[in-house]
Amino acid sequence: MLEQLKEEVCAANLKLVEYGLVILTWGNVSAITPDRSLVVIKPSGVAYDSMEPEQMVVTDLEGNVVEGELRPSSDLMTHLELYRSFPGVNAVVHTHSRYATALAQAERSLTCYGTTHADTFYGDVPCTRHLTAEEVAQDYERNTGLVIAETFRGRNPEAVPGVLVCKHGPFTWGASCRKAVENALILEETARMALLTEQMSCRSAPPAPQYLQDKHYFRKHGANAYYGQK
Amino acid sequence: MLEQLKEEVCAANLKLVEYGLVILTWGNVSAITPDRSLVVIKPSGVAYDSMEPEQMVVTDLEGNVVEGELRPSSDLMTHLELYRSFPGVNAVVHTHSRYATALAQAERSLTCYGTTHADTFYGDVPCTRHLTAEEVAQDYERNTGLVIAETFRGRNPEAVPGVLVCKHGPFTWGASCRKAVENALILEETARMALLTEQMSCRSAPPAPQYLQDKHYFRKHGANAYYGQK
Amino acid sequence: MLEQLKEEVCAANLKLVEYGLVILTWGNVSAITPDRSLVVIKPSGVAYDSMEPEQMVVTDLEGNVVEGELRPSSDLMTHLELYRSFPGVNAVVHTHSRYATALAQAERSLTCYGTTHADTFYGDVPCTRHLTAEEVAQDYERNTGLVIAETFRGRNPEAVPGVLVCKHGPFTWGASCRKAVENALILEETARMALLTEQMSCRSAPPAPQYLQDKHYFRKHGANAYYGQK
Amino acid sequence: MLEQLKEEVCAANLKLVEYGLVILTWGNVSAITPDRSLVVIKPSGVAYDSMEPEQMVVTDLEGNVVEGELRPSSDLMTHLELYRSFPGVNAVVHTHSRYATALAQAERSLTCYGTTHADTFYGDVPCTRHLTAEEVAQDYERNTGLVIAETFRGRNPEAVPGVLVCKHGPFTWGASCRKAVENALILEETARMALLTEQMSCRSAPPAPQYLQDKHYFRKHGANAYYGQK
Repeated sequence: MLEQLKEEVCAANLKLVEYGLVILTWGNVSAITPDRSLVVIKPSGVAYDSMEPEQMVVTDLEGNVVEGELRPSSDLMTHLELYRSFPGVNAVVHTHSRYATALAQAERSLTCYGTTHADTFYGDVPCTRHLTAEEVAQDYERNTGLVIAETFRGRNPEAVPGVLVCKHGPFTWGASCRKAVENALILEETARMALLTEQMSCRSAPPAPQYLQDKHYFRKHGANAYYGQK
Repeated sequence: MLEQLKEEVCAANLKLVEYGLVILTWGNVSAITPDRSLVVIKPSGVAYDSMEPEQMVVTDLEGNVVEGELRPSSDLMTHLELYRSFPGVNAVVHTHSRYATALAQAERSLTCYGTTHADTFYGDVPCTRHLTAEEVAQDYERNTGLVIAETFRGRNPEAVPGVLVCKHGPFTWGASCRKAVENALILEETARMALLTEQMSCRSAPPAPQYLQDKHYFRKHGANAYYGQK
Repeated sequence: MLEQLKEEVCAANLKLVEYGLVILTWGNVSAITPDRSLVVIKPSGVAYDSMEPEQMVVTDLEGNVVEGELRPSSDLMTHLELYRSFPGVNAVVHTHSRYATALAQAERSLTCYGTTHADTFYGDVPCTRHLTAEEVAQDYERNTGLVIAETFRGRNPEAVPGVLVCKHGPFTWGASCRKAVENALILEETARMALLTEQMSCRSAPPAPQYLQDKHYFRKHGANAYYGQK
Repeated sequence: MLEQLKEEVCAANLKLVEYGLVILTWGNVSAITPDRSLVVIKPSGVAYDSMEPEQMVVTDLEGNVVEGELRPSSDLMTHLELYRSFPGVNAVVHTHSRYATALAQAERSLTCYGTTHADTFYGDVPCTRHLTAEEVAQDYERNTGLVIAETFRGRNPEAVPGVLVCKHGPFTWGASCRKAVENALILEETARMALLTEQMSCRSAPPAPQYLQDKHYFRKHGANAYYGQK
């Protein structure tokens, strides 16, 4: 069942390799069914170069495997928590991409330094707080999802489709697998440009003016968007 | 109509991908007809891997679509303003290439640190001032072109075929699509070398002596050039 | 003899090129037989693009060539010393990969800044002391192995499968050629992320909390691991 | 005539592209005949992707074209001066490779920070002084060669087969085209590692001990070398 969604999820996982966002077996993509009852996710620790759609694992929202021979990604519970917390999100991506991970390791949010960022993320991409020793010891992956949800209280996860998990790395999401993977790529690229911006400034650089962030975000998103084809 | 120019513009857009200057649907190239009445430009938000010459959009200098099924690049009005202001320019390129964009985000001009820069750009590549909130709110793309033109008052856009738009990114231009794209590549490469030069100097590095900049620029440009084939 | 091990060692050497860890003839991989009597190693100074399994050199643990037309890698004696000192190690890799080598040149250990590191290395990856002038003048390669072994007194080489040799570069190891090469790739990637983390922090960044390092290392290693397939 | 040398020079120029040391038409390789009467060099401003051995230009040591339809590289006179000054050098390479050029722009020599450097360059790779305004105005390319020769007074150009020309970029050389190109690649790689070493040290890093530099250089060069095959 869910053959088409398995193909999409498998293809999205392979895009992570093509975009240079993962090495070895790092990273994972999942997607949820339109009725939000089942999730398709990459199996744990499987090599990308032999990955097939039929290897994708189907689980329910409690994490019980409904279909598939392999174990699901060890980050499954984080993905499930995000689907529960963010009703508009249909796909979730996790990578250890270089620049976004380094920013998470530096315990910093991603500042909006220019229009490249504002085209996709409305405002800074936040970094979560540290998980406590207790949150790490028990239900670690679920707590990772909960601390992301906590970080987004008062924020719109559709306007800022990504997060940096402190000392860990980025998660991104979107309305489709393709969008969630593109957001992972854009997060990496803007994190890289942000470091360069700071290095070129020899100090923390000033953020883009709010009116410029507004312009770029809203020329690509919402009712008055005029980027792309109708 | 303009089939040959559409092919050139399409090929130039694809070069941006080959040179690593754009990802996803970022970036755009346009060219103007010899009589300066019509402009051919990349359509907005179309994937590079399926891009075809017949998808290129033809507009007049007011931005009215004269031919083409698709919407033109959302940066069209910036391109048109550059054609109006710079009579010697036949092609315009916009990218969000990493190092040039970071320099724009750092609100800095590109200093001439050596002969690699002087071979192509005669003196620093300037960074524009910020656009005002009003300039962003109304006719944003056209105002982006106007602020570039303003930056070049008293400068020769043919001797410095590129600019950094503050908090946005680079635009370059040239006598042909090929030249404009090469200038985009050289701007990115020299921006990258400039950062490395400063990092290796552990401080802002001294610029190249003026006599050396002269030598390199004029051995490649103008009446006494002796680089390349006759 | 040992045709299968020669194929594994040859393939592992070629993986170093594919992973971007070596250029020209730099780097070398060896493996030891299950009875720990013979070692298969890359020949010295041979081009990767024409490398064949039958060119691999077989030596005993004193470094006498038992089979092969070519000279073994000039680092052979370092490899042999590691096999003698680390009984659980079946394969050894040496590269001059960029970031790990720079860390060795900076005379620094690799700090654990996040979960990417903790997934593979339990705690910091140490940098050896300098070799003395005497240790360099006489039995240099063997002394390189001895100083690595000295660095691991009181450490578990299976929990930290790599080292930075001061002013030289990285060695990694593992239970198989594949694992030892993966560890070389992960050491390079985490060294790169560590520099980025420090640059983004504008100061030496705080390490990951110990409880988070524990969680990530032990969800991938040991009796309670739950990453990957059973 | 000189068909074989033309093939070698053409292949060496193409290697610069393969190694990522040049873009567009940047860079050039030449070689001298065994009797040191004629030089084969890349033509000026010709695209690499259509370059053919028969396009190579043959000149005498005064720079007169002896064979070839095209103009020689505009850097010809620098190459000729190096052949005159360095009798053991049979091939010369010039690139604007990123890290070596940045070091030249920073007006700095390349410090020997480790064994990767010492394997090829015996001691620091020097940076020339600035050319004077007069030296740039008249016979610029020949004076570039002369200032390199001046820098090597009291140095052995075979033990240090490369130089950084102040505010310009690297030249390397060797006993063959292949060696000269490899030295260009190693200079770029070690320049890159040197910057990383300094960044990881957060200050200028201490150089490798002399005894270690000696060991690595002499295990690869001279009568007692034991790297590679006999």
